[in-house]
Amino acid sequence: MQEMKGGITAPAGFLAAGVHANVKGKGGTKKDVAVLFSRIPCAAAGVYTTNKVKAAPVLLSQQRTATGSLQAIVVNSGNANACTGEQGMKDAEAMAVLTAKALGLEPGAVGVASTGVIGVPMPMDRVKAGIATAAASVSESGGQAAAEAIMTTDTFDKQYAVQFDLGGATVTIGAMAKGSGMIHPNMATMLGFVTTDADVDSGALHVALKAATEKSFNMITVDGDTSTNDMIIALANGLAKNSRVVVGSTLFDTFAAALEQVLVHLAKEVARDGEGATKLVEMRVKGAPTVEDARKAAKAVCGSMLTKAAVFGEDANWGRVLCAMGYSGAEFDPAKVDLWLGDVPMMKAGAPVPFDEEAAAVVLKEKTVVFTADLHAGGGEATAWGCDLTYDYVKINGSYRT
Amino acid sequence: MQEMKGGITAPAGFLAAGVHANVKGKGGTKKDVAVLFSRIPCAAAGVYTTNKVKAAPVLLSQQRTATGSLQAIVVNSGNANACTGEQGMKDAEAMAVLTAKALGLEPGAVGVASTGVIGVPMPMDRVKAGIATAAASVSESGGQAAAEAIMTTDTFDKQYAVQFDLGGATVTIGAMAKGSGMIHPNMATMLGFVTTDADVDSGALHVALKAATEKSFNMITVDGDTSTNDMIIALANGLAKNSRVVVGSTLFDTFAAALEQVLVHLAKEVARDGEGATKLVEMRVKGAPTVEDARKAAKAVCGSMLTKAAVFGEDANWGRVLCAMGYSGAEFDPAKVDLWLGDVPMMKAGAPVPFDEEAAAVVLKEKTVVFTADLHAGGGEATAWGCDLTYDYVKINGSYRT
Repeated sequence: MQEMKGGITAPAGFLAAGVHANVKGKGGTKKDVAVLFSRIPCAAAGVYTTNKVKAAPVLLSQQRTATGSLQAIVVNSGNANACTGEQGMKDAEAMAVLTAKALGLEPGAVGVASTGVIGVPMPMDRVKAGIATAAASVSESGGQAAAEAIMTTDTFDKQYAVQFDLGGATVTIGAMAKGSGMIHPNMATMLGFVTTDADVDSGALHVALKAATEKSFNMITVDGDTSTNDMIIALANGLAKNSRVVVGSTLFDTFAAALEQVLVHLAKEVARDGEGATKLVEMRVKGAPTVEDARKAAKAVCGSMLTKAAVFGEDANWGRVLCAMGYSGAEFDPAKVDLWLGDVPMMKAGAPVPFDEEAAAVVLKEKTVVFTADLHAGGGEATAWGCDLTYDYVKINGSYRT
Repeated sequence: MQEMKGGITAPAGFLAAGVHANVKGKGGTKKDVAVLFSRIPCAAAGVYTTNKVKAAPVLLSQQRTATGSLQAIVVNSGNANACTGEQGMKDAEAMAVLTAKALGLEPGAVGVASTGVIGVPMPMDRVKAGIATAAASVSESGGQAAAEAIMTTDTFDKQYAVQFDLGGATVTIGAMAKGSGMIHPNMATMLGFVTTDADVDSGALHVALKAATEKSFNMITVDGDTSTNDMIIALANGLAKNSRVVVGSTLFDTFAAALEQVLVHLAKEVARDGEGATKLVEMRVKGAPTVEDARKAAKAVCGSMLTKAAVFGEDANWGRVLCAMGYSGAEFDPAKVDLWLGDVPMMKAGAPVPFDEEAAAVVLKEKTVVFTADLHAGGGEATAWGCDLTYDYVKINGSYRT
């Protein structure tokens, strides 16, 4: 498997554009409408927020990916089109219709995604103009602009692409994502879009996407707020001419592994760029009774405000890691736990180990801070990612709407 | 029911003291060891953290209150005696033995509580001296010093007392609590101590304490971190000579209502004094299918970092309230929800209501910010309390240990 430059337009046959449509109505030049288009129809799969309050575009795209086929996606930032009532559904449908018309497609072939402020009606006049401009300018080099257009408080765009052999054919997977606040297990205002020129059965694409999401986007947390708008959509157009990937084949395993690598890479980038974050926190749990216990324990640590604040303060307050595992719901005996900060032991068999404050300080100064816990209760393992809690998180979220 | 001055020494027969023992070893004058003593044995009940990682004093006091009887409690701040292995249990037991000896009691008559940093062995030489000084100086006016001694990052001490008629006898309930970080439903590094001169059967005391805790301390959240050390212990010495309160009697209902009032008062004080907080947030949910759904929805809003940050920033970002209810696990139909910020309508039947920004700004400037949601799905109601998320929370918790 080889990393490539670029993102969603790296695979053959995908075109994209990102334009400034002034969605927020405050002027500026930030790109805020993106269109992604495949030259031919694609197998499609989606994974969506578990929040009971789902934004209109989530409801719409959920229906559309359920058909297993899409050819384009329109995305806007600046407005979530969530908590917008019936008008919100009409607006999401109108976005698909406008995009479809401009690209010569049926409306049912277009997915819709939105991210931004909740509870504000969509400024459809400006969105309409943005879609027209974006759809008219899609190109093979448009991935960068699209990745910028989906950003909200993200401080950098998130793209990734890999190329690998799939049964003799060279296939490419490209992807882009945006994070930044409302990031939590079971997704967040996390939008992710995956493209591939591999020929993949839509059922297989769904199974692979769901499994890869479990190990990537569902293992990150920024603030515990699961958003109304999360979605990841994958499109496969088959232009690489490999034998079709179906569930249960060896090709499936190869494809699924590549997809997981792509999503884990992007998920870590999203965690690292959590609102106000200065550090990536990685929590590795091993020796859990089950994988599910390991997942719970790892995610609780990354979600603990006290642990996050301690990492920001570069304070080796490892007791907070134990505390978070303790309320995570994971099964374990605290008296058996070993814990490390980086490679510095903090706890052995449930009792504190006198440690070198200077060695701990070196670990805490890194841009990525890793904790490892061995629960000595079985073979379950999992890794979760998060970020530190900083003054800037408060600042950003204290005045997001205004 | 009448409010009184004072706290744990307001009821007849209770003496207390709080002294500086230098538990943290950093000098200063902050009181950090408290002793509470009743002239005669008490019926006792306790409610404890649900964290799987329980501090040594939690395990010890849990055993002791299970017997239904106690006569004294020793408390220290500055060290949680959590994640301290077998030595931690020995130290907690030693604290009880030292207190019992000084007061002329059996060790089994003494409860132990600790709060402070996790994973650091107890400085038993200093704690021992502190217990000796405190036990020698317990008095009827010592409630104030005790309330100060249990504080950690609390900015004010939390005491409350009420007097009421119980079947012809005048009885008093007094209480003290400390909060400040790690505050979450299912308790937190929340310590609460309740005293009463009412004659209450220990079983009835337990039932009433558990029910009152459910509506008070289990409905507050500061940061979602359920601590290793939470406990609430209630002692009833019977000196008011009322007919004994047993479960199922009308006296029980009167006593339970008074106890609930005391705990709700203190819980709100704890939420208001959450680390770094500038505002109390109150979330009222009505029209839920069940009380449990209402509780889930109300707590999720108070625990939402995004909502907390928006309240700090005095930003009427009400969509975050909807979002938090949506991921709370509560059953409801988003299309039916009405939402108010103070008395200003934000949402009606799932659609946004254009609102007066100035009216919203007035509500957000108050020291207590109230949101009300009507889910129109049944008769379940609940209220939860929390606080805003501020720069100071990050500051306090970025350098707590060092």
